Amino acid sequence: MIITDLSGLEGLIGGQPDLAQAAGAYDKLMAGAYAGYDGWLRPGRAYDGALDRRLKDTAAEIRESSDVLVVVGVGGSGLGPRAVLDALCSPDYNLKKKASPNIYFAGDSLSAPELADVVSLLEDRDFSVNVVSKSGSTLETAAAFRVFYSLLRERYGDGGARARVIVTTDPEKGALRAFAEENGLRSLPIPPDVGGRFSALTPVGLLTAAVAGEDPCRLIAGAEEQLASGREEALRYAAARQRLYAEGKSIELCAFFEPRMRSLCEWWKQLFGESECKNGRGIFPAGAIYTTDLHSLGQCVQEGERNLFETFVRVTPGERLALPAWGYPGDGLDPLAGRELSLLGGAAVEAVKRAHMAGGVPVIGVDAGALTPESLGALLMFFETACAVSAMMQGVHPFDQPGVEAYKRNLRGALGL
Amino acid sequence: MIITDLSGLEGLIGGQPDLAQAAGAYDKLMAGAYAGYDGWLRPGRAYDGALDRRLKDTAAEIRESSDVLVVVGVGGSGLGPRAVLDALCSPDYNLKKKASPNIYFAGDSLSAPELADVVSLLEDRDFSVNVVSKSGSTLETAAAFRVFYSLLRERYGDGGARARVIVTTDPEKGALRAFAEENGLRSLPIPPDVGGRFSALTPVGLLTAAVAGEDPCRLIAGAEEQLASGREEALRYAAARQRLYAEGKSIELCAFFEPRMRSLCEWWKQLFGESECKNGRGIFPAGAIYTTDLHSLGQCVQEGERNLFETFVRVTPGERLALPAWGYPGDGLDPLAGRELSLLGGAAVEAVKRAHMAGGVPVIGVDAGALTPESLGALLMFFETACAVSAMMQGVHPFDQPGVEAYKRNLRGALGL
Repeated sequence: MIITDLSGLEGLIGGQPDLAQAAGAYDKLMAGAYAGYDGWLRPGRAYDGALDRRLKDTAAEIRESSDVLVVVGVGGSGLGPRAVLDALCSPDYNLKKKASPNIYFAGDSLSAPELADVVSLLEDRDFSVNVVSKSGSTLETAAAFRVFYSLLRERYGDGGARARVIVTTDPEKGALRAFAEENGLRSLPIPPDVGGRFSALTPVGLLTAAVAGEDPCRLIAGAEEQLASGREEALRYAAARQRLYAEGKSIELCAFFEPRMRSLCEWWKQLFGESECKNGRGIFPAGAIYTTDLHSLGQCVQEGERNLFETFVRVTPGERLALPAWGYPGDGLDPLAGRELSLLGGAAVEAVKRAHMAGGVPVIGVDAGALTPESLGALLMFFETACAVSAMMQGVHPFDQPGVEAYKRNLRGALGL
Repeated sequence: MIITDLSGLEGLIGGQPDLAQAAGAYDKLMAGAYAGYDGWLRPGRAYDGALDRRLKDTAAEIRESSDVLVVVGVGGSGLGPRAVLDALCSPDYNLKKKASPNIYFAGDSLSAPELADVVSLLEDRDFSVNVVSKSGSTLETAAAFRVFYSLLRERYGDGGARARVIVTTDPEKGALRAFAEENGLRSLPIPPDVGGRFSALTPVGLLTAAVAGEDPCRLIAGAEEQLASGREEALRYAAARQRLYAEGKSIELCAFFEPRMRSLCEWWKQLFGESECKNGRGIFPAGAIYTTDLHSLGQCVQEGERNLFETFVRVTPGERLALPAWGYPGDGLDPLAGRELSLLGGAAVEAVKRAHMAGGVPVIGVDAGALTPESLGALLMFFETACAVSAMMQGVHPFDQPGVEAYKRNLRGALGL
């Protein structure tokens, strides 16, 4: 269960968050006001027992046949799986000894060095490719898939290559769907009524989780639980954001207090930026990892323009590590010897909140509790529902992204396609 | 040589950048107006032949004795080495087969999982530790150093541990300096007149470069060349930024078109954020990697609030990769088969610039040319000089960071230290 804490707005806002307006938007959303775009509100229905078996069988085959899984996707199709992998395993997942395959990401840029790096990492390693694209025509993803599919065909022949591709796309439409059907490729569905930035809790994010050894059902269960009981907390976050925006706070700095949430922070930026920034309006979504970025952006928060607010997202990982007794003279840490590092981190959150509030920066708190697949699923759902409600309060369509579609057209045009 | 392109402001600003004011600030800076803070303007003098030999000997010993170097530092002491390593080698450096040691970063947070991850990666691996802190009293760094020094002593005994620590700190003062002297540790100097965010071209960043197999002299040479000939280009960037800020653009989105520049982008955010955001003013520094983030922040740039401008930073890496001939029907890329990916990326830069300008977003161009140690050194120096000039134009002290110092005090206070 996600907890929203608005105590960090006290004395820093002129009016109160409009919870009634938020509730109206929430209830309208739940009543189907955006039918055709709201499939993510039913994660358990889409991810049913049959799909669970299919996805887990696919993950088991990849784990059996491959040292590496290459996930090819961009936007939500890349950010979702990265966020889930980093948060549940580690940003150092690929460096660790483990029973599961390495997982590399590609297809999210037009960078030759980035692609060449991943290709070089596949030398002497058996690999599979999960290409993720709802339309099947996103240029960066299609270009990278050409590279990896060619490599698969060189290495394993036509049949072998086909056995090592998993297509995650629309169940009915699009270029990749047709390709998968014609060639008998394994495929997993992105429900037609789930857009890219809302797709982390579909096979887009869940196959990566399963290959890494996590049970997708636990993420889904957390999301369903959040839907069942998280209405008020989502409303509070959405209403507070819109109140702050109405009072001139045009930047939200979303700070996660764990480095393994860095990719989730990138996912958060897409979710809110694409959903809200339209018609010349919308809060600019900036991200940070604290305490790291207190040594860079901290100055800006403490003493820069008063045009921003912060959202502090806390999770409590299970790892424990005590501060050793030995330190060099002058490091000043002897009084903390033997203390858990996570407790020091907790004290830091409170100290930073007080200091930033004293500097005139409102702080929204979001606490997800112990970091588990369930709480990660809940956190994703919390942000998704709050985001939709916030966009509705702002008076924009939460589920389109005309500026991104224009970019895709412009890029193809510039390349003469 | 770095080139600044202001054609992307045309039609989008009311007045012209004040190059005369910028020139005045630049000349004042060069004349020693900030003596005591401006040692970074003489990178070659600080990094002389004697230091070069000492640093290279140290790097050679680490390469000989260790499978892993752990760099412990935060703020500029962590961002500088990361930026250099990722840009010159790769963000995938540690995953690659190579003759040089893996390089892990730590000491930049109070995260138990992050520290525990690095500790787990040191099992069965010989390692050395480079602790980087000018004052020697930064809490995150001191805490992590306790962990790694304890591990060194367990594994190698007291003498062995001492032989595997390299201290990068002030040459005269501070807790780490005293510790290094008393224990006969190898040490490298951070010049007293160089602050953390300006220290990438000192042993802070250069030891990491040397351990990874790069020649620090090439970075220094590039920086010196930039200083000798880059005055006008730095002025143009600084003056354009301040003009845009005066016209209400309160966010700068600095977009690098190569994923390996992601850490440099983080370094850039600290450089500008800490130097300028003071007294309730300053441009908020946001970062992006394009084309990746066009699929997330792109919507916000194209159609959100018109309170931002972009800086497009281009480098041209040496890697080449042609788009394979084979693709699935409908990916639409057949006309591009055989074309270099980097050429497609170049076309993307132009298409994005036109689209964002059409959406009302001014775009500053910064082109560093081929990505080499020289051009990286030049780019660092370009940003450093432009940043100092821009802060001076804004009327703030470019080299203090009172908000960060307050954070450090607050944190120690909250922990009862």
